[in-house]
Amino acid sequence: MKDINMSNLVNIREVGLRDGLQLIKTNLSTELKLSWINKQVSAGFTEMEVTSFVPPKLLPQFSDATDIIIQSNKIKDLKPTALVLNIKGAIRAIEAGAKKITFVLSASEKHNQSNVNCATDQSLSMFDEIIEISKDIKIEVAAAIATSFGCSIQGSVPEMRVLELAKEMAKMGASEINLADTVGYANPNQVKSLFSELKNQIGCTPMAAHFHDTRGMGLANVVAALQEGVRRFDATMAGLGGCPFAPGASGNIATEDCAYLLESLGFDTSVDFDKLLELRSYLSNLLPHEKLEGRLGFAGKAINFKNKLL
Amino acid sequence: MKDINMSNLVNIREVGLRDGLQLIKTNLSTELKLSWINKQVSAGFTEMEVTSFVPPKLLPQFSDATDIIIQSNKIKDLKPTALVLNIKGAIRAIEAGAKKITFVLSASEKHNQSNVNCATDQSLSMFDEIIEISKDIKIEVAAAIATSFGCSIQGSVPEMRVLELAKEMAKMGASEINLADTVGYANPNQVKSLFSELKNQIGCTPMAAHFHDTRGMGLANVVAALQEGVRRFDATMAGLGGCPFAPGASGNIATEDCAYLLESLGFDTSVDFDKLLELRSYLSNLLPHEKLEGRLGFAGKAINFKNKLL
Repeated sequence: MKDINMSNLVNIREVGLRDGLQLIKTNLSTELKLSWINKQVSAGFTEMEVTSFVPPKLLPQFSDATDIIIQSNKIKDLKPTALVLNIKGAIRAIEAGAKKITFVLSASEKHNQSNVNCATDQSLSMFDEIIEISKDIKIEVAAAIATSFGCSIQGSVPEMRVLELAKEMAKMGASEINLADTVGYANPNQVKSLFSELKNQIGCTPMAAHFHDTRGMGLANVVAALQEGVRRFDATMAGLGGCPFAPGASGNIATEDCAYLLESLGFDTSVDFDKLLELRSYLSNLLPHEKLEGRLGFAGKAINFKNKLL
Repeated sequence: MKDINMSNLVNIREVGLRDGLQLIKTNLSTELKLSWINKQVSAGFTEMEVTSFVPPKLLPQFSDATDIIIQSNKIKDLKPTALVLNIKGAIRAIEAGAKKITFVLSASEKHNQSNVNCATDQSLSMFDEIIEISKDIKIEVAAAIATSFGCSIQGSVPEMRVLELAKEMAKMGASEINLADTVGYANPNQVKSLFSELKNQIGCTPMAAHFHDTRGMGLANVVAALQEGVRRFDATMAGLGGCPFAPGASGNIATEDCAYLLESLGFDTSVDFDKLLELRSYLSNLLPHEKLEGRLGFAGKAINFKNKLL
């Protein structure tokens, strides 16, 4: 069996339509969201977190979650995924026909309280229940651990706690363990250390990483995670994003910069950079009031850059 | 003898007053430049490239070069350095009383032509002559190789050419070999490969790295260079900078982000982050028309961040 962790293929999961829309002012219509999704799929993306099943009263930008899943399911070559934080959200996602959901809990008790209003262990029990509910349905249930590298409310987060949660959720049946640096506290040494231990704890369950570029170390953290065998990365177009319930949170690593780094390092992302940069321009028109991050959007490709796809 | 390449101490050389002022519109007065220098020294910096001895007609922002060197020499705990591109510039720097000069040539023939209007081998001969001139004077002569990782005019730059130039200049008596990624083409694999070879070529001559963050890989490249034993890094406050004679050039890695990365990785930079971030605010007033980069300036330190200095 081929070890996925040694693969030359890297999957970037665009989470701009979920994480990216959390902090911004503009409310994108369902139609515009679908246009974004279609453009990104044609730039080579096969997995996108297209929405979040959270209370529409709290985050009205996701009130069209059901519709987005129904429409995204029709797009060829795309595996649309959705974020859920509790059982109610999971049931809504399942009813909408989601093929993959990512359940998020936080390793920081204080952030879990702020984000989902309960203790982390209660979230863990919910995850177990969601796994039970989804057993007879064709759905993949992934797990993400927020604030895995530190928390802007409680400060440091014990590595042991993150690993314990990861092991527990892998055992329960998580299809993937995603360690998230929700507030941009991670550094490359910490990333290497935590993912190296994670491998020992979760065996062949695939690892994923979700980095924010809050303090400029996002891509350096990607390199560190790659060295430990991570081949799945969350990112957002133009580095949009941030958790509304974590003080000081800011944007994710930029999809276009992350893809460019990966291709430069010789990995295969299947990304068409011309189409990706066109999408970025399109988004700058769609979101005129947002500060778009990411450097490739300003600099363009190097003249000697070779896109493996072409 | 302690191997400098294994040291826990890392020196960040602020080049904002040289590289940082090349592309910007505001012409800072000598007084304001000195105020910047003093503030940065009090934030813990011991080496700053404070000016460039280039023709004032071409780059009028450096017409006060002599004065800046004279005044900087009076600042306690600071080693001011100056950039030179030819013999005339070196003589002016020596006459001003510079304690260290960095001579720059380009590994890309096309960039060397664009930057200094001669072949790279001619620049190399000039360097030899400058070493001769400076032999009986108490001055350190460092060498920097621009476009070591690629060039926006000619594209790829052969690794062999960079190494040949480095070896030659080390043999001639360069006090340091600085590999510069002038246009932000470098990726971490390339950085590891080139510095690993450089070590073999230049023996115990200290290595330095000069990265631009044009495509977002600046800090990832710093990590790669650290792994190969580089302990000297150029950077600019708020990521200002860029070569006016290299198409598509943009800002350096941001000093504050670089220092924060280094301290997070456990290296000792002697930087006082509170003072450094105060300086950044000061510069944002000084340069109101410039787009300030760097993430730490927006995010601030993590609440559990430990500054080794304090």
